[in-house]
Amino acid sequence: MVAASSVVLVACGSGKGVGTNSGSSKTELTGNNSGSKYQSLIKDGHYQVSKSSGVDQSQTSNTFNLQGFQHGLQNISKKEFSPDKYVFQEGQYISTSTTYNWLGRKSKDNPEGLNPSQPKKKVVPEYLQQVDEQDYLEPEGGKMKLKGMTIGIGLNSVYYYTKENYGAQYSKHLDDADIEQNGKEIANKILARMRANKDTKNIPIVIALYKAAPEDSLVGGNFIAYSVNKDGAKEVSSWNKVDEKNYVLPASDGEKLPNDNDAAAFNEFKNKAQSYFPNLSSVTAQAHYTDGSLSGMTINVTTQFYSYTEINSFTQYLQTAAQKYLPTGAPIEIQVGSTNGMQSYLYRSTNDKKFSSHVFTNY
Amino acid sequence: MVAASSVVLVACGSGKGVGTNSGSSKTELTGNNSGSKYQSLIKDGHYQVSKSSGVDQSQTSNTFNLQGFQHGLQNISKKEFSPDKYVFQEGQYISTSTTYNWLGRKSKDNPEGLNPSQPKKKVVPEYLQQVDEQDYLEPEGGKMKLKGMTIGIGLNSVYYYTKENYGAQYSKHLDDADIEQNGKEIANKILARMRANKDTKNIPIVIALYKAAPEDSLVGGNFIAYSVNKDGAKEVSSWNKVDEKNYVLPASDGEKLPNDNDAAAFNEFKNKAQSYFPNLSSVTAQAHYTDGSLSGMTINVTTQFYSYTEINSFTQYLQTAAQKYLPTGAPIEIQVGSTNGMQSYLYRSTNDKKFSSHVFTNY
Repeated sequence: MVAASSVVLVACGSGKGVGTNSGSSKTELTGNNSGSKYQSLIKDGHYQVSKSSGVDQSQTSNTFNLQGFQHGLQNISKKEFSPDKYVFQEGQYISTSTTYNWLGRKSKDNPEGLNPSQPKKKVVPEYLQQVDEQDYLEPEGGKMKLKGMTIGIGLNSVYYYTKENYGAQYSKHLDDADIEQNGKEIANKILARMRANKDTKNIPIVIALYKAAPEDSLVGGNFIAYSVNKDGAKEVSSWNKVDEKNYVLPASDGEKLPNDNDAAAFNEFKNKAQSYFPNLSSVTAQAHYTDGSLSGMTINVTTQFYSYTEINSFTQYLQTAAQKYLPTGAPIEIQVGSTNGMQSYLYRSTNDKKFSSHVFTNY
Repeated sequence: MVAASSVVLVACGSGKGVGTNSGSSKTELTGNNSGSKYQSLIKDGHYQVSKSSGVDQSQTSNTFNLQGFQHGLQNISKKEFSPDKYVFQEGQYISTSTTYNWLGRKSKDNPEGLNPSQPKKKVVPEYLQQVDEQDYLEPEGGKMKLKGMTIGIGLNSVYYYTKENYGAQYSKHLDDADIEQNGKEIANKILARMRANKDTKNIPIVIALYKAAPEDSLVGGNFIAYSVNKDGAKEVSSWNKVDEKNYVLPASDGEKLPNDNDAAAFNEFKNKAQSYFPNLSSVTAQAHYTDGSLSGMTINVTTQFYSYTEINSFTQYLQTAAQKYLPTGAPIEIQVGSTNGMQSYLYRSTNDKKFSSHVFTNY
């Protein structure tokens, strides 16, 4: 559980100087609930949604890709733009139309397209799937100023296409080396374009490459590399490798977790959970690995039972079983659902010793 | 957030003597996660579901009635059977067929029916809607023994009927005094029947009357009275009045909360939440009152936004607004959902100073 902490609305100009009043528009912050999370900017009482809001959603039918991309991008940002110092704002500099142009194929009508042009009767895959911008601000001279930016480049791992309009869908698996090479070329083009805009000419821009999972995947994709481009740099000089991967549990044939013990621990927990009720409960998990170690797990337990007392007792039982069997050292979240939606959930952060639980209440 | 505490599986015969081994069947407990919650009994690795499991679900289409009935019944039990001393078990003494017989109308074929017999061409309402049994055990002589029972009697507040098979549904609003009187008569009959069974002849039996909400209600019903019937008593000697009621917020025309300040506080929170995103979010709540004071609130916020960064910032913002506006002194739960289900939730227990929050993670 995230510990509750400072939750005071920071009014204009007060509160450690992070709130400010830029001209006639009043800005405030969402309030910070922990040192590891960004505060976000609110202007005139409204959240500033992304200038390209909704584009991401239209580019992938896999919501795990979407969440993993945005969440992971913010985690990469934290390495360069500390939440203690910077305020988060949804991307305000790359517009919806620009984003769609970039995501399109290069053509006479769309010279800005970052996907290759399409010759007749040849399958030329599109590598670029989505672009996400995140802004990082600091107060300066009584105003909140853009001081850093992170751009995520989402890349297809499978290219889906049809041979004719409304025809059958075909797919082509893309090679990892090709994905990375194409991503890096696209990154250089985007960086050069951002430097042509006066607002983003002289700020540090972090660019990260995300390899999206196939559409039918039960987990999202993963970041493969990121670069930190100092003020004014027009070309990426070096890339940092990112080693992360998501797995579905129970593992399908032929897929092996980096750590056998984690798979065994999950199976023990799963068996224990499934033996509880006379009718089978379904127990699956997403496991996130960073540098070969478990760095997060979300377990979904679905049961046909949903009386209050049944869910309450079951949650207590899962708490005991989770504490006994599941691996330590990574945040673990367990969502317990029925046909009526989520009934309870359990959580243990990396630093917590015990799982905490909550059964949702209706009156 | 419920603080995590002791979560050790209590094995047979160990652990403060609450686990035990009765003959060849191994019993264990679900593990207690807080002093205010019951541990439940597990036999041979399986949870003992109620002998009449599923009957409740078939008797009402309003799931709020179901949850409120079961949850509230356990709260009433706590007054007589302390969770520190007693172990909870789903009802094992009133079977499914007995329950259905009791819920039926009295007739030649069903002499046990607790609803009045049906004369021809006259509307005679059924008062009894559901019956729920909860068992409370203590270890004795190396075995877990039944030491107390709570029986909930769910009563219709509206009687739904048709004039012919598959005909239109009509409804008749039932009078509060009639509901209570019928409930008390049914309670006496059930108590006498329980005393005819040797297992339940000499234990304390708590009986509680629940007035179910109409089928289309956005909140469940409420308990109106309970009685504590000492070992062997065959008739209820006295009733304790229960003063509780549920309200929907924003309040509909003509309905007024017991406390105007609570309604105003909710409205301030609602306005603040709805101003956040450019598109409207829906904000509704269930407010539970006991003895005229707010004793619990569940707020549902539904938004069309669901990118990770949007939900994350919104949750932070709600945490600030909830802390600023919402009334203290009662547990408050805020569920934030999108078309993809629950995205985050916030909670402050009666004793917590601040709201804590959790954004659900997918990988």
